[in-house]
Amino acid sequence: MIIMRPGATEEQISSVVREIEKHGLRADVSRGEFMTVIGPVGDESKLPFDRLAAFNGVKEATMVEIPYKLISREYARFFTANHKHSVMRVGNVEIGGKGIVFIAGPCAIENRDQLFRIAEGVKQAGAHILRGGIFKPRSSVHSFQGLGATGKDEAEEALGWLSEAGREFGLPVITEVRGESQVDLVSQYVDILQIGARNMYHQDLLVRAAQKGKIILLKRHFGASIEELLSFSEYIAAEGNKNIILCERGIVPVGKGKSFTRYMLDLSAVPVMQKETYLPVFVDPSHATGRRDLIYSMSCSAAAAGANGLMIETHYNPEEAWVDGKQMVTPDELKVIIDACSRIHDMIEAGCDENS
Amino acid sequence: MIIMRPGATEEQISSVVREIEKHGLRADVSRGEFMTVIGPVGDESKLPFDRLAAFNGVKEATMVEIPYKLISREYARFFTANHKHSVMRVGNVEIGGKGIVFIAGPCAIENRDQLFRIAEGVKQAGAHILRGGIFKPRSSVHSFQGLGATGKDEAEEALGWLSEAGREFGLPVITEVRGESQVDLVSQYVDILQIGARNMYHQDLLVRAAQKGKIILLKRHFGASIEELLSFSEYIAAEGNKNIILCERGIVPVGKGKSFTRYMLDLSAVPVMQKETYLPVFVDPSHATGRRDLIYSMSCSAAAAGANGLMIETHYNPEEAWVDGKQMVTPDELKVIIDACSRIHDMIEAGCDENS
Amino acid sequence: MIIMRPGATEEQISSVVREIEKHGLRADVSRGEFMTVIGPVGDESKLPFDRLAAFNGVKEATMVEIPYKLISREYARFFTANHKHSVMRVGNVEIGGKGIVFIAGPCAIENRDQLFRIAEGVKQAGAHILRGGIFKPRSSVHSFQGLGATGKDEAEEALGWLSEAGREFGLPVITEVRGESQVDLVSQYVDILQIGARNMYHQDLLVRAAQKGKIILLKRHFGASIEELLSFSEYIAAEGNKNIILCERGIVPVGKGKSFTRYMLDLSAVPVMQKETYLPVFVDPSHATGRRDLIYSMSCSAAAAGANGLMIETHYNPEEAWVDGKQMVTPDELKVIIDACSRIHDMIEAGCDENS
Amino acid sequence: MIIMRPGATEEQISSVVREIEKHGLRADVSRGEFMTVIGPVGDESKLPFDRLAAFNGVKEATMVEIPYKLISREYARFFTANHKHSVMRVGNVEIGGKGIVFIAGPCAIENRDQLFRIAEGVKQAGAHILRGGIFKPRSSVHSFQGLGATGKDEAEEALGWLSEAGREFGLPVITEVRGESQVDLVSQYVDILQIGARNMYHQDLLVRAAQKGKIILLKRHFGASIEELLSFSEYIAAEGNKNIILCERGIVPVGKGKSFTRYMLDLSAVPVMQKETYLPVFVDPSHATGRRDLIYSMSCSAAAAGANGLMIETHYNPEEAWVDGKQMVTPDELKVIIDACSRIHDMIEAGCDENS
Repeated sequence: MIIMRPGATEEQISSVVREIEKHGLRADVSRGEFMTVIGPVGDESKLPFDRLAAFNGVKEATMVEIPYKLISREYARFFTANHKHSVMRVGNVEIGGKGIVFIAGPCAIENRDQLFRIAEGVKQAGAHILRGGIFKPRSSVHSFQGLGATGKDEAEEALGWLSEAGREFGLPVITEVRGESQVDLVSQYVDILQIGARNMYHQDLLVRAAQKGKIILLKRHFGASIEELLSFSEYIAAEGNKNIILCERGIVPVGKGKSFTRYMLDLSAVPVMQKETYLPVFVDPSHATGRRDLIYSMSCSAAAAGANGLMIETHYNPEEAWVDGKQMVTPDELKVIIDACSRIHDMIEAGCDENS
Repeated sequence: MIIMRPGATEEQISSVVREIEKHGLRADVSRGEFMTVIGPVGDESKLPFDRLAAFNGVKEATMVEIPYKLISREYARFFTANHKHSVMRVGNVEIGGKGIVFIAGPCAIENRDQLFRIAEGVKQAGAHILRGGIFKPRSSVHSFQGLGATGKDEAEEALGWLSEAGREFGLPVITEVRGESQVDLVSQYVDILQIGARNMYHQDLLVRAAQKGKIILLKRHFGASIEELLSFSEYIAAEGNKNIILCERGIVPVGKGKSFTRYMLDLSAVPVMQKETYLPVFVDPSHATGRRDLIYSMSCSAAAAGANGLMIETHYNPEEAWVDGKQMVTPDELKVIIDACSRIHDMIEAGCDENS
Repeated sequence: MIIMRPGATEEQISSVVREIEKHGLRADVSRGEFMTVIGPVGDESKLPFDRLAAFNGVKEATMVEIPYKLISREYARFFTANHKHSVMRVGNVEIGGKGIVFIAGPCAIENRDQLFRIAEGVKQAGAHILRGGIFKPRSSVHSFQGLGATGKDEAEEALGWLSEAGREFGLPVITEVRGESQVDLVSQYVDILQIGARNMYHQDLLVRAAQKGKIILLKRHFGASIEELLSFSEYIAAEGNKNIILCERGIVPVGKGKSFTRYMLDLSAVPVMQKETYLPVFVDPSHATGRRDLIYSMSCSAAAAGANGLMIETHYNPEEAWVDGKQMVTPDELKVIIDACSRIHDMIEAGCDENS
Repeated sequence: MIIMRPGATEEQISSVVREIEKHGLRADVSRGEFMTVIGPVGDESKLPFDRLAAFNGVKEATMVEIPYKLISREYARFFTANHKHSVMRVGNVEIGGKGIVFIAGPCAIENRDQLFRIAEGVKQAGAHILRGGIFKPRSSVHSFQGLGATGKDEAEEALGWLSEAGREFGLPVITEVRGESQVDLVSQYVDILQIGARNMYHQDLLVRAAQKGKIILLKRHFGASIEELLSFSEYIAAEGNKNIILCERGIVPVGKGKSFTRYMLDLSAVPVMQKETYLPVFVDPSHATGRRDLIYSMSCSAAAAGANGLMIETHYNPEEAWVDGKQMVTPDELKVIIDACSRIHDMIEAGCDENS
């Protein structure tokens, strides 16, 4: 990490970047209000930090060994001003700001009517962002893979519906991009790209998606440690895209015997990741629990843990959903959840100020 | 499970019990306001349910195959009246009732002064029950094992302090009993027996402790599934002691790399166990996280998940504690936590009534 | 699963396929010596099995609900003759046949000399297939990502070396393909495509690679159950490519405290997967243990468990390897391992015949 | 760890011990052929190592921070002569010596006939030690708990049969001791005390059992890391009893979906623990797999990993066993397993000498 002096010139910054590149690494340049910080991407042990420290305009040059330095608080504190977290804006929605953000919508888009009806419901319930799956990652090739699997035309049609529903109800939209070959297409239609838990380790997809410059919501793989989620987020940041939302969605349960939930929600990941990085942290209680009757309590629990947002699968009639019906709530239930979580969030924010 | 008709006579109940015992099983007799339910303890496949159904006074006789039937809601619904959970009283404290209960105190009792000073602090902070470890289960024989390890006299002296501090500050007291040979002694001094995570699978201890008739707080082993915790609680219930508090305290983390917390708190266990059983569920964020800076957020999160109580290690000066200093909060911090959690609990309780 | 009568005509087979496709599923047609079996790909609950059973030439039509039916023994027993496992041939090497197969070579190709020197060494040691990583999946963007990361020209050059070394020493070659965009290029140069543990869940890559028709070695993700590995293998099989090698390479360790190995090798996965499927099962002790001093014992252990092959990272000078030096063995050590494992394999094979 | 000079006097040794005890620790004194090593039991940070180094007769005094120092190779190398492992003798059986040792017998003793018939079978099959469960740790209070649960008389009767069968067939005997209160009784009848996986963390039991001076076979808990097993073994060693057999019996599986085995056998634990300690390592494939059809391959695999012994549940008619019938083999199958494993063991031993 190379911290430039306040007032360092562009030429001085370029010299440092060139020196880093000379050793086969790339350079991430983050410009703050008062200083600029340069983060080497690659094996820092190859860099001559002593030499770099002597460059004109350089205040400090030190090796940082954590694998997620570009998204770390340590890195951010030199170029961010007063806020602890980065705040991203999409449409009228502020992510990582004062309020708690709700992403809601169907697991999978089934048809135009279903999507619009749900979109209207989640809007009225108070949600901020509309979700709808088109390319579904599935554990079995014999399960429904989303409308995107039917063909390119069907994929585009469904993407069109999502984009249109977003405009109609004033909701930014998010959908999952599952493979590299879908990135270009999906990016044309949505505001936020979701990379699902099964693809968290898929670095080529992360890089390709990052290059679109859009906000990326990256879910934690169910077998991944927090450190791994952060390390793979770094693949996005290393492309110069720091618009990353981290999302906890449950990990594999430990222990013998019946599992009462689909996965196990790790809510301590919320404050841990907020302390390690400057990125907002969301929670997906739907996939984590797989149980409609637990969404209310686990949403409240996530809000109380300090989550910046929640992603909740919603359907006007969960019983007839093609995918994940067991874990969806109705728009009415969603409203109760949003209200409770928002109140908890406000209370926690107040308490945090005293307690921090 | 044999459900007796309302008005079944004692003689009819005894006949059923004798029949069960004739086949080598024991019988748990639970008398409700309107009916009595008899739960066989042992291998139900050996019982002639058809024959039992024909006994005088028997309304229904069916095999129940879950390993935790005596503590299940299914079993309780015939003999409990209107409440969903069992409510236990100890001193002035109601466990499993409307409010959220706080157990606080030092990890290990070091001396009389330390204990009394902390007891006073936690009382003022609003805690309801005083904890203090005397027999400490430790992963290493080379670590401090609690004053109880020094000798019987020292153990009794420390137990005396605990009992005395409880009386002085009007707080019921709890301490851990680690081995069978400590049960008699410890039971003389405390209101609640704690069985720690490492001993959850230790059925002989469970049975011995259960026979004392006191409330038992049983912690989930860090490698145990929820089903296992419930199955081992059944060892207590099978002795006729249903005064059981279940306690989640974190399980082993999954995944490669650095672990940011000592264990991983499984908060979905709270609503899951409350739905499966009629027992109150507590959470111990201190051992789960091992990090003082996470106690506030994880306590709030536990309260929002619906926990009936929290157990929080407290010390006036965490840095100088002999054991677990890193995870203790001060009485002042405890007060902030109790206030926030109580407000969240009240809010959640209100929401639950609407949402249930 | 639709089993055709012996002597069913092509027209009868086509009718069944058309009927399956009419309901939105695909059909996998496997022609055995005596019968043909048709496996629907997709949601079988949409198929009219009663109607299909009445089609001309159909012997039996039944729903199979396991998510890996196309690779299951159940499916294979109708069209395979006398052997229990499928046998694949590549060059002179028989995979899944009587002998145990050794894949060896460097973790990452560093330059032409390094590769050729190691290739010569592993050939002399008795290995059958040459490995060499070009596109390296890495947990940190700051680590060396393989020569393939430098650019397309460097990737092709390294692929050329691998292909050339294979020809020079008479060894078929294998390398990892990490993203969809690398499949076309890599397929031109190698005999076997490896899909690494981190990409096991990456279904778009599996499908794209499968379509090349080459043998695919699919490693188990370190957080994946056996059922998941088999279910994702099915994505390959569903493309009509049954040339799949399953590879166990260690899963995340459970429990608190120091980890003595990098991952934990699950050797019971070997006989389990051989009983569930007709695919050969390989073991990679190098990544599983991460410890050179354990490769010998864990290789022997894998051979004794019945593994069809082993993949062992080899370097003439492990200390100076750019990646994974700690877990590589020298060609001399490899020879000792191959000799011991081959003897164990022969002994086990003999015992199995008596014992099966 | 305090290493005394060759020829240090008893008085010099006593001085060191007294100094250690003065600081509240205990001292383990191990006398080798040439030197004596003194291992402090307790918190070494309280010891004045500088001062101890200056005591007469002291060669070296250093703090050792691993929690299992008394069983470590580091500790043993000063007082053991030429062998790497400790060798224990019980009857005619050598444990930890050149050969591989087989413990076999029923999961639970059902009656005298059953035990004697199985004892005869396992003797003929070539087993060395007879097992038979009397106090069974069970996950459910509703399952058969062993004859020991019926009453003290029944327990003694069963223990008598075991002892008698051992004498009749020339086999040392082992049974599990589950709670502290059973230690005195059980010790009178058996040669080896088994402490089961569920009780691994049960330090009071470990201490009580250790004090009997008998060989103790300690099984790894299914949620325990290797480090934890070693740390809890240290509780036994700290009582001056180093006659410990470590036993791997499978840990909880990771990942979603169907589990094909009861637990997951961690065979890399075998060489890892043999490198860390001087204790023999056994493997129990019966409980690990829970599947009779996997016992052969996993036994061979364990032998090839270098296991010093195997514990295999055996019954002349597995189908009618009261407990664990699914995982038992017949005496005939046992013979095939013993023969194969012994041949593999011999081959591995030879290879190890070359390869070590």
